[in-house]
Amino acid sequence: MSSSSPGAGYRGPLFDPVFGADELGAALSDRAWIGALLDVEVALTRAAAALGRIEDADADAVATAAASLAGDLDPADLGRRSAAGGNAVIPLVSLLRERADAPARAVHVGATSQDVLDTALMLLAHRAGAIVVANLRSAADGAARLAATHRETPMVARTLGQQALPTTFGALAAGWLLSLDDAVTELGRALSVLPAQYGGAAGTLAAVHPDGFAFADTVADLLGLARPVAPWHTARTPITTLAGALGVAAGTVAKPATDVVLMASTEFGEVSEDAPGGSSAMPHKRNPVAAVTARAAARRVPGLVSTILSSTDHEFQRAAGAWHAEWETLGDILRLTGGAAHQLSVSLNGLHVHTDALDRNLALTGGAILAEKVTAALAEHTDDARSIVTDAAVAGRRLDEDPVVTTHLDPQNVRELLDPTRYLGHAADIVDRVLTRHDTTNRTTGGTR
Amino acid sequence: MSSSSPGAGYRGPLFDPVFGADELGAALSDRAWIGALLDVEVALTRAAAALGRIEDADADAVATAAASLAGDLDPADLGRRSAAGGNAVIPLVSLLRERADAPARAVHVGATSQDVLDTALMLLAHRAGAIVVANLRSAADGAARLAATHRETPMVARTLGQQALPTTFGALAAGWLLSLDDAVTELGRALSVLPAQYGGAAGTLAAVHPDGFAFADTVADLLGLARPVAPWHTARTPITTLAGALGVAAGTVAKPATDVVLMASTEFGEVSEDAPGGSSAMPHKRNPVAAVTARAAARRVPGLVSTILSSTDHEFQRAAGAWHAEWETLGDILRLTGGAAHQLSVSLNGLHVHTDALDRNLALTGGAILAEKVTAALAEHTDDARSIVTDAAVAGRRLDEDPVVTTHLDPQNVRELLDPTRYLGHAADIVDRVLTRHDTTNRTTGGTR
Amino acid sequence: MSSSSPGAGYRGPLFDPVFGADELGAALSDRAWIGALLDVEVALTRAAAALGRIEDADADAVATAAASLAGDLDPADLGRRSAAGGNAVIPLVSLLRERADAPARAVHVGATSQDVLDTALMLLAHRAGAIVVANLRSAADGAARLAATHRETPMVARTLGQQALPTTFGALAAGWLLSLDDAVTELGRALSVLPAQYGGAAGTLAAVHPDGFAFADTVADLLGLARPVAPWHTARTPITTLAGALGVAAGTVAKPATDVVLMASTEFGEVSEDAPGGSSAMPHKRNPVAAVTARAAARRVPGLVSTILSSTDHEFQRAAGAWHAEWETLGDILRLTGGAAHQLSVSLNGLHVHTDALDRNLALTGGAILAEKVTAALAEHTDDARSIVTDAAVAGRRLDEDPVVTTHLDPQNVRELLDPTRYLGHAADIVDRVLTRHDTTNRTTGGTR
Amino acid sequence: MSSSSPGAGYRGPLFDPVFGADELGAALSDRAWIGALLDVEVALTRAAAALGRIEDADADAVATAAASLAGDLDPADLGRRSAAGGNAVIPLVSLLRERADAPARAVHVGATSQDVLDTALMLLAHRAGAIVVANLRSAADGAARLAATHRETPMVARTLGQQALPTTFGALAAGWLLSLDDAVTELGRALSVLPAQYGGAAGTLAAVHPDGFAFADTVADLLGLARPVAPWHTARTPITTLAGALGVAAGTVAKPATDVVLMASTEFGEVSEDAPGGSSAMPHKRNPVAAVTARAAARRVPGLVSTILSSTDHEFQRAAGAWHAEWETLGDILRLTGGAAHQLSVSLNGLHVHTDALDRNLALTGGAILAEKVTAALAEHTDDARSIVTDAAVAGRRLDEDPVVTTHLDPQNVRELLDPTRYLGHAADIVDRVLTRHDTTNRTTGGTR
Repeated sequence: MSSSSPGAGYRGPLFDPVFGADELGAALSDRAWIGALLDVEVALTRAAAALGRIEDADADAVATAAASLAGDLDPADLGRRSAAGGNAVIPLVSLLRERADAPARAVHVGATSQDVLDTALMLLAHRAGAIVVANLRSAADGAARLAATHRETPMVARTLGQQALPTTFGALAAGWLLSLDDAVTELGRALSVLPAQYGGAAGTLAAVHPDGFAFADTVADLLGLARPVAPWHTARTPITTLAGALGVAAGTVAKPATDVVLMASTEFGEVSEDAPGGSSAMPHKRNPVAAVTARAAARRVPGLVSTILSSTDHEFQRAAGAWHAEWETLGDILRLTGGAAHQLSVSLNGLHVHTDALDRNLALTGGAILAEKVTAALAEHTDDARSIVTDAAVAGRRLDEDPVVTTHLDPQNVRELLDPTRYLGHAADIVDRVLTRHDTTNRTTGGTR
Repeated sequence: MSSSSPGAGYRGPLFDPVFGADELGAALSDRAWIGALLDVEVALTRAAAALGRIEDADADAVATAAASLAGDLDPADLGRRSAAGGNAVIPLVSLLRERADAPARAVHVGATSQDVLDTALMLLAHRAGAIVVANLRSAADGAARLAATHRETPMVARTLGQQALPTTFGALAAGWLLSLDDAVTELGRALSVLPAQYGGAAGTLAAVHPDGFAFADTVADLLGLARPVAPWHTARTPITTLAGALGVAAGTVAKPATDVVLMASTEFGEVSEDAPGGSSAMPHKRNPVAAVTARAAARRVPGLVSTILSSTDHEFQRAAGAWHAEWETLGDILRLTGGAAHQLSVSLNGLHVHTDALDRNLALTGGAILAEKVTAALAEHTDDARSIVTDAAVAGRRLDEDPVVTTHLDPQNVRELLDPTRYLGHAADIVDRVLTRHDTTNRTTGGTR
Repeated sequence: MSSSSPGAGYRGPLFDPVFGADELGAALSDRAWIGALLDVEVALTRAAAALGRIEDADADAVATAAASLAGDLDPADLGRRSAAGGNAVIPLVSLLRERADAPARAVHVGATSQDVLDTALMLLAHRAGAIVVANLRSAADGAARLAATHRETPMVARTLGQQALPTTFGALAAGWLLSLDDAVTELGRALSVLPAQYGGAAGTLAAVHPDGFAFADTVADLLGLARPVAPWHTARTPITTLAGALGVAAGTVAKPATDVVLMASTEFGEVSEDAPGGSSAMPHKRNPVAAVTARAAARRVPGLVSTILSSTDHEFQRAAGAWHAEWETLGDILRLTGGAAHQLSVSLNGLHVHTDALDRNLALTGGAILAEKVTAALAEHTDDARSIVTDAAVAGRRLDEDPVVTTHLDPQNVRELLDPTRYLGHAADIVDRVLTRHDTTNRTTGGTR
Repeated sequence: MSSSSPGAGYRGPLFDPVFGADELGAALSDRAWIGALLDVEVALTRAAAALGRIEDADADAVATAAASLAGDLDPADLGRRSAAGGNAVIPLVSLLRERADAPARAVHVGATSQDVLDTALMLLAHRAGAIVVANLRSAADGAARLAATHRETPMVARTLGQQALPTTFGALAAGWLLSLDDAVTELGRALSVLPAQYGGAAGTLAAVHPDGFAFADTVADLLGLARPVAPWHTARTPITTLAGALGVAAGTVAKPATDVVLMASTEFGEVSEDAPGGSSAMPHKRNPVAAVTARAAARRVPGLVSTILSSTDHEFQRAAGAWHAEWETLGDILRLTGGAAHQLSVSLNGLHVHTDALDRNLALTGGAILAEKVTAALAEHTDDARSIVTDAAVAGRRLDEDPVVTTHLDPQNVRELLDPTRYLGHAADIVDRVLTRHDTTNRTTGGTR
């Protein structure tokens, strides 16, 4: 049985699938961390070779040793060795030096532990972030399809839980899309500027002077990260800005997922998911599991973002705790935001819209929801428009039969005013605008629809 | 190489040791979750047998099957099966029914998924919470020893970073102890009332009527949990109260850990840890790694507590997301609070106090820190006491040589007033009071010192 | 027009009524702060007189001056004077000494600013906390009445938004009550142990040695606060424990308020508030404003609690920032928790329950919600019970007409099984249990019902 | 005495000055809110006139009435009227219609309460945000001056509280500047896209069809806000993105403020503020009050940001609570972030740098901090470099006198290696790079230096 091996049984595989985070769980696993740390060490060595500080052959030897370590280093073993110094880089460098057929000085050139850990975190964030963006984009595409399909499908708008006026399902979905596209753009921007870290023990690049910036730029280029203006060991805006963008993104998932859960409720009956969850005890249930778990994952992000935002008081040249607090927290933010987006994508891309229920609910108040329109028409004739309509509503009188209303307006006119399909305003135009912007977003940020 | 097995590589083993959470990581692992879920299922079955609803032999068969599943069920496999329904209980019940040589109705008797998941979470919290309490208690014992040993060791008190007046190291440590003992008491109390959950699909206990409460009580008794007043599927005070107590506990770690980091700084030099961390690049460094990582772990707790506190809006009889958000979050709170307490315990129980540095720092201002005492003595003679002393301080004059001061006070008297060991107030009494309370706390809550 | 006066227009009066916080806003206003700070100064002076350190006449003079200052000190003026030193006590002591016809040494005896500010905060918390408890208790009483009245009123239970099985409205309300009573008990407990603060500049009580503890106890007794074990300038469990209890309390408001909002929605139509909000544009709307604003207020608490919990790393004998962060934050937590409880109380105590809508919704699925019961009955005859019922549900067949079902069960029997009033389980018993506990809670904690 | 007027005494004036928020407190006061709400109502009316829907004279009359109301409407009165409907716009529109010499339909044209409240919030954020940016910019300029002045002033770098290697004070300040400029840029960007809100009761712009978008654009233009793509009543990325940017900004304050507090401590003695706070009891104290309160204000922001990020689950066309939770919370985030930046600006622009203390601390370890350099030099000769240096450190031997070291290196060479001014690496270059970027930031975003 595989899972009895050391290290197995730890958290991840049991819960990640529920929260849509299988792929992200893997991209942020202990093994992925080790791979990223080693990628950074190899980049440091390659940069040293490129700048003539070590031999190419030594760099090759280090790369070979790193590949070997990536294959067989046990995370639990590295974890145990990490405790003494408080981070995994210290023992990893020792192991890499031991295994590499190269002089010690060819490994970790001019670097401090934080250079490697920060750059590895940026690398993981860059990779995992791309998955998060893809998931958001997929959810956005689902919203876009619903908006286009139901551009003119009438439904009732609700404010504070109360039926208000007519709108279209397309306009509702366009609202989801509006935010999701914002999230795609913002997160894409944040990911595109994640910098490499390279500053050496005191952040002065002293060990490789006068090649400091060339060294930093080479490392960044080798890893596909942005070139840093300067070392940012204790200037954490790259971390906080990313966390903020992910927090915004998680928020854009919460709203459509909440709407789906509400519309899928038995009493509303307006939508259902393609693969609703059943219940062991209640076979009639059609749980909107994807939306439910999207909500759950999204709900867990803001608290974690606050942890990152409150861990910026890094003392002097390296923080005594605030730095360490970032590692798993940022990973969890990526994992849960991406998982939430994935579950929303599943929900929206398989969403069944029940137009019969939309119609039924739209008719529920017998036209009372269009009171505003009658009020507006009456207001052309009298300043008492509002109270006239309110009185009729309170008395339960149909507006086209109300004696005061019909003093001012023709009953047929009142009936037309109460026809929801004649009062959709710019609902379809809103859909068009948001879809046009979605095309632009997808084009600009490299997605497809 | 063990870690190439499925499931390995996921998060946990790499970072837990850094944050002092090895033991808690294991107690809250996927495997521990599966164990707890199965423990609950077995208790349900045993309760059914006790109440004469199924045969004892069938209960035995279910227990045997559960033990077998606990041994070989792969968390990743169960995770994948969980996604469709949104929780692990649905597939687990199927697997248990398949494996048990007993009728289907002998498994999951009268229960809903949330009964099992909530009770398992309480069981894990009860077990992991005991470790957290033990770690807090160990840290408290360390603080108590320091308080006792340094009951009368003078050091300078600092307010807003500025030297203020004399105190003793013992009084500082007593302040740590005061909070740690509060945390032990509060957390112990919260853990002692964690209830089992049993309500059935709608929370009415209908499936086992009229034995509902007897059933619930039996399950609670079998598992060593508190008997619930009523089903609490959407009444989450047991969860929020526990999270709050853990948040309080994590806060009691942050303060002493911060003090240790500050006192261990090169410029203060007042303490050092027994096994300070080295640096790959800087062999002279003596990093207070235990205190640093204690701070890091503690810092991650408040955001997670806010997630729990903001996930109480459970709709109707089962929440569509707020419930799911609790599982991993509560686990992380336990893991990190316990890890923080463990690292603090390591730090305090091995702390070296450098009395020479305490003395050196106490003498740093040449007596200016005792201005208050001279002011007070002068105030017996003049209402201008404060301005006289301030003027001398601004002018850099020794107070026993200041002409205005010595108009009112004898120079020898002034020198005695400036002797820090003569102005320790109730520092030692504070130590005694807090140690007495610590003894009571340990006696009351079952700890030893 | 009064509001053109300096200071008016600041935050509070505009928003507090919306969030139910009028009374708490006043109890936590700048003026209330000034009053509390002066109360503490007077207590310090009275304690000094009681211990023979100053004349009674001087204490009277200080009390007179304090009463005068409480009447006319402009908060904005005190605020401006506070900026230089970072807290309001420093200038307040100066003003009090100026105004009092007593020697300077009769004011602020042996105290440091934090003694006064912490004790004043505890005093405000004690007073405002009593209002919060009263509001919670009132909401609990409302829930209790609903539970009693609707002990046997059938309604449908919903899990994950889907209709599940029958329950009673009383059982739902009992769930609200269960948590609200927990909150009352926990918060009452936390409030009852709020200690006075008295430690002097270094926390050693040196300035009043050997009367330190007698002094602290006298101050506590005079103000009706708990006697401190020791100074707790940087041992913040009294603050964090209170914040945690308030966070738990706010959470107990969120759940019933959410249920009310959902049940008040047009599609559910099951409840309405006594004084629903109207809409300027839509006269037919019946917004459940009290529940909506209760949710809003409750939602703002967890983030603030995390601020308190993350502000425990108080350095040495006085924190350089973490302390200052507590003041307004704890006030806001009290204000919003109490406001949320107030709005919930308004909502529940005026709630109209529409039993026709409860019945209509209960009948919505044509009996499918009782599938569990038919399944259970079938399971006595066959192990395929679940699939038989599922097949009928999928095919949309009435269970009492399904040929396979009726092979095993009599149609009349099936119809009885599908009668919701015959499957309410322990719903009424749950109500009784929770009401009994409510009586105990009210008796124990001093409330009335 | 002015403050005895109704409404005075509410929160704001007492604490805002301590947290640097006088100006922001006023910009976000109840009165400022009323002003902004009325500005939006006037813009709605003006837009209606511009689109030919009402007479210009009526628009003038509404504007006149609004100006009159802005002058004399009591916030407490409006607050009380707001409670029934849950927001201030409903009664404000009534009051405006009452007072305006214009038909009712000239007021609030086609709008819903949320249109007005959201737009007013954006207006307040735009105005208050400009103050926050100015404060951040001022702090950045202070950091820039320190970086320039102390470009080559040696000081010791510290990691995890331990002395590490030399750097310059300028490089430390450049790190502060790096983040502050990021914050200025990000926040400026977020503020520049804050959109007006205009959608009508259901978000379809139906009441002013077919002029909906023209109407929305006109309102935006009149108020200097961005034109919305579509109504965003429940698509809250404008709110969350702004909150995120402010959270990032607050974080950039925390780091330099923390460094100042640490460096100002008696034991470090490296900096002091220009106007340090005194203590009533301890005249020798020089509290870095500006940095302390900057930390306190910054520390309160992340929890509030999490409240905003977790309030995105706006149901359907208007949220039942999540919307209301934004108002005061966003105001507090602006107030505290701006206050933190103000206090940091005060601290940095008046900071005294004590180079004698910097030198003294740099010499504290007797050269041990440059072990890395000796190790590097030795590594050219032997692979045992690290252990040789470590052994000497452990034995307390001067490296230029260590027999093994001097086997490989000339003692004079060792002494040069141990000279801190010869190992500053790129410290000065880092200053230059960050100052260059600061100039660009100031030019691009409109600031001056």
